[in-house]
Amino acid sequence: MSGQPMPLPQLLDHLKRTAALSQVAGLISWDQETMMPTDGAAQRAEQAGAIATVIHACNADPRVPEWIAEIDQGTLSPFELRNIAEAQRAYDRATKIPSRLAEEGARAASEGQRLWAQAREEKDFSMFVPALRRNIELKRDEAGCLAAPGAELYDCLLDEFEPGARAAELLLMLESLRPGLVALREKIAGKPAPQPLTGHFPADAQLALAKTIAARIGYNFEAGRIDTVVHPFCSGNGGDVRITTRTDEADPFNCLYSTIHEVGHALYAQGAPDSYLPAADYCSMGVHESQSRFWENQIGRSRSFADWLYPAMEGAFGELSLAGPDALYAAVNRVHSGFIRTEADEVHYNLHILLRFGLERDLISGALDVGDLEEAWNARFVCDFGETVPDPSFGVLQDVHWSIGLFGYFPTYSLGNIYSACLDRAMRIDLPDRDAMIRAAETQPILDWMREKIHVKGRVLPAPQLIEEATGEKPSAEPLIAYLENKFSGLYDL
Amino acid sequence: MSGQPMPLPQLLDHLKRTAALSQVAGLISWDQETMMPTDGAAQRAEQAGAIATVIHACNADPRVPEWIAEIDQGTLSPFELRNIAEAQRAYDRATKIPSRLAEEGARAASEGQRLWAQAREEKDFSMFVPALRRNIELKRDEAGCLAAPGAELYDCLLDEFEPGARAAELLLMLESLRPGLVALREKIAGKPAPQPLTGHFPADAQLALAKTIAARIGYNFEAGRIDTVVHPFCSGNGGDVRITTRTDEADPFNCLYSTIHEVGHALYAQGAPDSYLPAADYCSMGVHESQSRFWENQIGRSRSFADWLYPAMEGAFGELSLAGPDALYAAVNRVHSGFIRTEADEVHYNLHILLRFGLERDLISGALDVGDLEEAWNARFVCDFGETVPDPSFGVLQDVHWSIGLFGYFPTYSLGNIYSACLDRAMRIDLPDRDAMIRAAETQPILDWMREKIHVKGRVLPAPQLIEEATGEKPSAEPLIAYLENKFSGLYDL
Repeated sequence: MSGQPMPLPQLLDHLKRTAALSQVAGLISWDQETMMPTDGAAQRAEQAGAIATVIHACNADPRVPEWIAEIDQGTLSPFELRNIAEAQRAYDRATKIPSRLAEEGARAASEGQRLWAQAREEKDFSMFVPALRRNIELKRDEAGCLAAPGAELYDCLLDEFEPGARAAELLLMLESLRPGLVALREKIAGKPAPQPLTGHFPADAQLALAKTIAARIGYNFEAGRIDTVVHPFCSGNGGDVRITTRTDEADPFNCLYSTIHEVGHALYAQGAPDSYLPAADYCSMGVHESQSRFWENQIGRSRSFADWLYPAMEGAFGELSLAGPDALYAAVNRVHSGFIRTEADEVHYNLHILLRFGLERDLISGALDVGDLEEAWNARFVCDFGETVPDPSFGVLQDVHWSIGLFGYFPTYSLGNIYSACLDRAMRIDLPDRDAMIRAAETQPILDWMREKIHVKGRVLPAPQLIEEATGEKPSAEPLIAYLENKFSGLYDL
Repeated sequence: MSGQPMPLPQLLDHLKRTAALSQVAGLISWDQETMMPTDGAAQRAEQAGAIATVIHACNADPRVPEWIAEIDQGTLSPFELRNIAEAQRAYDRATKIPSRLAEEGARAASEGQRLWAQAREEKDFSMFVPALRRNIELKRDEAGCLAAPGAELYDCLLDEFEPGARAAELLLMLESLRPGLVALREKIAGKPAPQPLTGHFPADAQLALAKTIAARIGYNFEAGRIDTVVHPFCSGNGGDVRITTRTDEADPFNCLYSTIHEVGHALYAQGAPDSYLPAADYCSMGVHESQSRFWENQIGRSRSFADWLYPAMEGAFGELSLAGPDALYAAVNRVHSGFIRTEADEVHYNLHILLRFGLERDLISGALDVGDLEEAWNARFVCDFGETVPDPSFGVLQDVHWSIGLFGYFPTYSLGNIYSACLDRAMRIDLPDRDAMIRAAETQPILDWMREKIHVKGRVLPAPQLIEEATGEKPSAEPLIAYLENKFSGLYDL
């Protein structure tokens, strides 16, 4: 073997190069949303396709299994073992799914999004049915290529976003939220609504305040930037993690809280141990979402933060229509029934996810036919929310996910809420004076705790184990229900 | 052969994918100069390296010569033949230059730029000598891989920027500029200098006026954007051609004329027949530069344009220190001796290029040793400009090109000036009322002429033939000298 390059360094080099190309794919996608001129769209589709083909070829490189077979795994660290496992996982996905199927899937997603947008505009679900049916067929075929005999197809889709998760177990955890959420919603429904914030809030002042908040909670502007878009997102890794936000001059909370949410994602990405190897990547989408939700809700929507935010908003916008921090705290936590997931409060949000999770699982298993989806959605909505969906743009057509073939993604949102509450509970014990830090917006110890427990851990452990090691308890829905009951009992005098 | 994919479509698909990846490489380079946060630099180097490796593998794909061998070229159009020739040319470059040499070249360029910047800062050429020597060695090795036996090595380097050009012929053309330029410079030296523009010119107003000018001369903002940088450039293809500019609040001409220059490049790129195949790409760097110079000098620095620009500048900045369009015309054409190429006027500029062209050709041939370069530069400068270089930051260390291994690039600047004058002369005959168009900044017929004669022609013809077909005459230095003599005789009352 002397003089031969060793298989592990060769594999790691290959993984780093692949990761660099994936970062490029992410960058051109960011550019498309923020900077690209209109007429660049056709070229960009070609560019994205070309990069995707290259990345696929890297993942499917026949040398990968050869290198893995030659590596003596007995002496390796958990970090090294995870890199090997992730290389095998990417190889399996890339080689088991025929390229014809991957290409058809990409085309069907693009076509699906187009027809979904039309159908939503026309408020006519039937226009979208054939495209959605096609997406589901292709996703079932894709899952069929990956699934072990007898396994649930949906789990193969879920695995892309939440490695190792199983729908049956996840359902138990998420459904255990339902009774508490429904009870809370019903108790709050009888109470007077808090005063909303009214006024005019110039976009520039909103963006300046959003940047101030981002910097105070630890977002590193030397390793990122903020731009404005229609649908905010976070993108990038390590030394280049970019966030986006938007402004509504009647509602500064939209900008401020979407910024805090994306900063939560960005802190995780900026705090990763290094930006190249898969074991250093984020653990799962659920853990990623736990970071955004934690900063948005447990910190940003806390009573303590209102003490800092109220004068900061007065400084940015002049006198506010709200009387003080208590009123601000009530306004940013206003509970209101509504049809749209992305506008939902902390009490209703997970009910939206439960509805989608159940339906998409049945769509993939075949228990629910696409032709019956609208009726099923509307029936579930009355049951869970007590209201009748006025038209499909407020119901089954509101989210883009299914139109682009994203199945198995929705439950990671609720998992993020559950994990954020688990982390919140453990952190309160470790940092007894946390409220004082939040009141002063001096949150470095909070970030340090999260860095140490989550960010630097990468993808070495599966998500449930990562949370258990961070908190000392197996993750469950209980901390989230307790957090919500405590918070909203106080706010609504329940 | 039935049922087999045909070799030509396969080759063209491959070339389109390769072009899309090259566009991505261009985009991440644009991002690096305009948008990237500081801490993204290390990752970006990895990303750029990964994409470069992928593009190299595409160019060196062993299927390329197989496809070419299978294609029946007898029936093909000139456009198709050029695509095949360009594929062969890229294949030869990618396979004849060993990857070890390409990698060492990239490293030496990066190291060279670092040491050049230090040496320039310290005004000490000797600090830069070893790195420059290394760059030249590697460039000679690279050229040696490509050159036919007995060919001049420099021609292989020139060929990358000016396909098919030969240094010996180019020298004759460029040197024929010298007597006329020197005579003009000497005559002007005895004349009073025109009044300069003074005042304060807010950056925002400069950028707004620059955008107005860009749009009026035909830059399509639906297919591009303008951002500010330290060193302006143009980047992109087809539907996504981005330009950059800079502002100096004491000197609005810097912003306005660098914008017009980059718009000239951008109009060429926006007017290409399609953005994917190599035969549709720009003809040569000389032709590219002819487009930027034409809009900058023949249009932007014309007496007619001053009629439009003067009131436009008054609108943007208020009252000007210059009395009217005549004074503006004189100010933007001020001839001044100076050491720095990028600040040179139309009379001095090509003398700067002649100096560099001669020296770099001798460096590559070995006739001039790097250790003697500073002395050679300074001696030539006294001869050509009649002044003594005060220190190497005003002399041999002023340009970045050699530090990053760019040899064979400088002469394309002068070639651009020569071609722009050839095109200008022919266009004046075809568009007899061109001055009136420029006075009104209604230049669409001018752009249409250039689109038809140059932009839509791509790379099908070699540059000299393209210019000859466009103008009806073989390209020569004569139109440029005639243009300069006519312009400056009027301006300086010679």
